[in-house]
Amino acid sequence: MQKNFTDRLCSAQKKIGSLVCVGLDPDLSKIPHCHMKKFHSTHEAVIAFNQSIIRATAPFACAFKLNVAFYENLGEYGFSVLQATLNAIPHDKIQIIDAKRGDIGNTASQYASSIFELLNADGCTVAPYMGSDAVKPFLAYSGRIAFVLIRTSNPSGDQLQSLMVDQQPLYQHVARLAYSWGEQSPGSVGFVVGATNPEELKILRNKYPTVPFLIPGIGVQGGYLDVVAKVSTPEGPVLVNNSRGILYASSEQDFETMSAQAAKELRDLLNNAIKHHAH
Amino acid sequence: MQKNFTDRLCSAQKKIGSLVCVGLDPDLSKIPHCHMKKFHSTHEAVIAFNQSIIRATAPFACAFKLNVAFYENLGEYGFSVLQATLNAIPHDKIQIIDAKRGDIGNTASQYASSIFELLNADGCTVAPYMGSDAVKPFLAYSGRIAFVLIRTSNPSGDQLQSLMVDQQPLYQHVARLAYSWGEQSPGSVGFVVGATNPEELKILRNKYPTVPFLIPGIGVQGGYLDVVAKVSTPEGPVLVNNSRGILYASSEQDFETMSAQAAKELRDLLNNAIKHHAH
Repeated sequence: MQKNFTDRLCSAQKKIGSLVCVGLDPDLSKIPHCHMKKFHSTHEAVIAFNQSIIRATAPFACAFKLNVAFYENLGEYGFSVLQATLNAIPHDKIQIIDAKRGDIGNTASQYASSIFELLNADGCTVAPYMGSDAVKPFLAYSGRIAFVLIRTSNPSGDQLQSLMVDQQPLYQHVARLAYSWGEQSPGSVGFVVGATNPEELKILRNKYPTVPFLIPGIGVQGGYLDVVAKVSTPEGPVLVNNSRGILYASSEQDFETMSAQAAKELRDLLNNAIKHHAH
Repeated sequence: MQKNFTDRLCSAQKKIGSLVCVGLDPDLSKIPHCHMKKFHSTHEAVIAFNQSIIRATAPFACAFKLNVAFYENLGEYGFSVLQATLNAIPHDKIQIIDAKRGDIGNTASQYASSIFELLNADGCTVAPYMGSDAVKPFLAYSGRIAFVLIRTSNPSGDQLQSLMVDQQPLYQHVARLAYSWGEQSPGSVGFVVGATNPEELKILRNKYPTVPFLIPGIGVQGGYLDVVAKVSTPEGPVLVNNSRGILYASSEQDFETMSAQAAKELRDLLNNAIKHHAH
């Protein structure tokens, strides 16, 4: 039987000493022009760009996250670029498909099968608005994880997530629900929690000490390294994602070196914050 | 400038005298075996199946809705099957991409561009949990529509959507928010509202008399034809979707005839309910 996701995440993190997840979101308007012009076709250029970034950042990252929007926009080549990118990721890294899926039973099963069978990813992101019907099909895959959107870091995240239900913001009810959906297959539910509100991160970690957190919003979107360090525990691992800050660290020839440096910098900042917190 | 979505929907409905939207969700385990075995490859078989269903049901349907989960699961051929299916839909029909997208600004723009530029669809479905950031990029396309999930017909839809916020269920707050997001580009926001709760449908129609409703849950999922008839008004059109009930009306050689009959039956039931309501 496949190992629990949390165990695999922890060993990937330990091996490399890093919580960093690199977001592979190939935006054609941002990939360095000097790279693009070396290729005859867009899809070959994107695959080669992703391969370069993976090679350069792998020493500093325990995981890679692919946002499917950027692949779908490549049209008929989208799927093969997605697959080629996953194939380029070393086997000891965690692979997350960021698709924020949310549809009912029958359709959710199709999505889960695409992500966990066809693409063989380790984890994915899912949206909670349709309730457990939309999430449970993802929890049937042993050793995998579905990160449920709980509290997102975007400016309008508040509009729904902070509505008060029984004197508690909605996102806390969603956390409670999502946690309960995973109770029959322990370790199968994670939370997506933005790093923009440190209090909220702490509340969620206190209530759910063993749930893995996927934390976007570090870097370009701002965030709070020291709070992330506080909520990262041996039982409750966190995965800290940065996409643009690492991927587009430079628009020149030196992009690989600069991406590696950006990933290393984030790894070191997080590790220092954790060390500081331990003292 | 392109005509408003509502005007185009109304003329598609008037032309054919039907509110029926046929859901093209090709499930490999349900497509008649006698059809599949005529083809060498799965993707050719699926394209041909969709073409047959479109040909058979077009006289009774004003719109077609493609749920992308079923296409993604076809892997590298998914996009071309999706595109070939859209190409087979007559130009005077409405084309909806059911993807329930929900991601933030940058990524939402990629999704919107895939759906409205690359695939050139008329409408799509979007999820509200991340707030306006996730929806607004879709509203920038003139003449198109984003149907926001408001009240879904699946059993666990209640878990979030019925939580009480200020003495009103969450879905009503979401409706209010979604409506407000569309105010700057009138006609750009529609609601997805299941037909399983007639009271809720009536409440939403009374509050939002001009918002187009996309109503799934008629047929296989049960539902209330007469209430749908009541909320279908000249200013506030409704689009009534059925997928499995029409698509898999027969698993034998006669599947085209049976699909056509199922679409015709739903059209007639709806039209009779509307006539009955008018008297």
